[in-house]
Amino acid sequence: MTFVVATNNAGKVREFERILSMHGHRCITLDEAGIDCKPKESGSSFDENAEIKARAVFDKCAGKYAVVADDSGLCVDALDGAPGIFSARYAGDDAANCRRLLAELGDTPWQDRGAEFRCCICAILPDGEVIFTHGRTRGTIGFEARGENGFGYDPLFYGYNNFTFAEMTNERKNNISHRARALGKLSFILRGVKHIKTEK
Amino acid sequence: MTFVVATNNAGKVREFERILSMHGHRCITLDEAGIDCKPKESGSSFDENAEIKARAVFDKCAGKYAVVADDSGLCVDALDGAPGIFSARYAGDDAANCRRLLAELGDTPWQDRGAEFRCCICAILPDGEVIFTHGRTRGTIGFEARGENGFGYDPLFYGYNNFTFAEMTNERKNNISHRARALGKLSFILRGVKHIKTEK
Repeated sequence: MTFVVATNNAGKVREFERILSMHGHRCITLDEAGIDCKPKESGSSFDENAEIKARAVFDKCAGKYAVVADDSGLCVDALDGAPGIFSARYAGDDAANCRRLLAELGDTPWQDRGAEFRCCICAILPDGEVIFTHGRTRGTIGFEARGENGFGYDPLFYGYNNFTFAEMTNERKNNISHRARALGKLSFILRGVKHIKTEK
Repeated sequence: MTFVVATNNAGKVREFERILSMHGHRCITLDEAGIDCKPKESGSSFDENAEIKARAVFDKCAGKYAVVADDSGLCVDALDGAPGIFSARYAGDDAANCRRLLAELGDTPWQDRGAEFRCCICAILPDGEVIFTHGRTRGTIGFEARGENGFGYDPLFYGYNNFTFAEMTNERKNNISHRARALGKLSFILRGVKHIKTEK
């Protein structure tokens, strides 16, 4: 299936493309679809924001393409799930957001620095069918930024042994990330993989 | 540090060994430490069971070794966290447990088949200091068993892209598993990595 990715973030388009192509799908950008769209993320949950983004693009597609949008964020256990839907605008840019998160956690010990990235995917198929899927990935917030890959809170998020998400290859991150898991479920649903073949 | 692994499960000892050796620690079995110990897991939480196992072995070590024990299980979102601490004794052996889980979930769609493995590690250092750490790893419960590696619910647990934990190499699983994450935190704590080096 060909999806228009409902985002103006080039990094995010590439990530969708890498993940969905593993499942045999194709992605095109808003530009490639000839769509100009900058919806306001005014929802109060990941689901609402993902749907706002998907619908805004779908309304300009006229059933020509499937649309896929996501909303995602970091939820830190010790901060009652903050920054959550405010992850991208916690303090300003990525570096400022990371600094604020470290300041909020202070010297909270390793034991209590658990966190998870959460992602909601909203896909709208050409016939108007809406599919929501979710993905989460667990990790631990470090005491300093490490690594140059990724974006957002990746340099603080230990999600693969001794490594932060910013120290991982794209390939590896895209196999275990919240976004990869939500898109994986979407792909399973589209393939109709739902057979129960186990013994009674 | 050298840890006695408080379990009679040879597979689990190997998993501890693989993970802790990545952090520079060494593991020995109960046999190698000359300890005979089969504590009853009568606790009502992962923490209680892990501590019961660790203390039982520690009491026979007389401060000669550090001890590490875990208790872990699978918590399925749609089943309010079941089978949880009853994971190992949900229906009987691994195959029966997996069959029961699939039956309980029935045709719950992919969207709602989220789950997580949780692990509590209890370590007791030779001087008696007790350290608890926790790890979780998220995934999705499939509709049939896939793969030959691992144990327990691994064949049902999609945790790495299209693959169940039973279809992954040990090396890969040991970088993202609940046990790996909990042991990783333990290792961070033992190394005293706790410096806040970020800019103000």
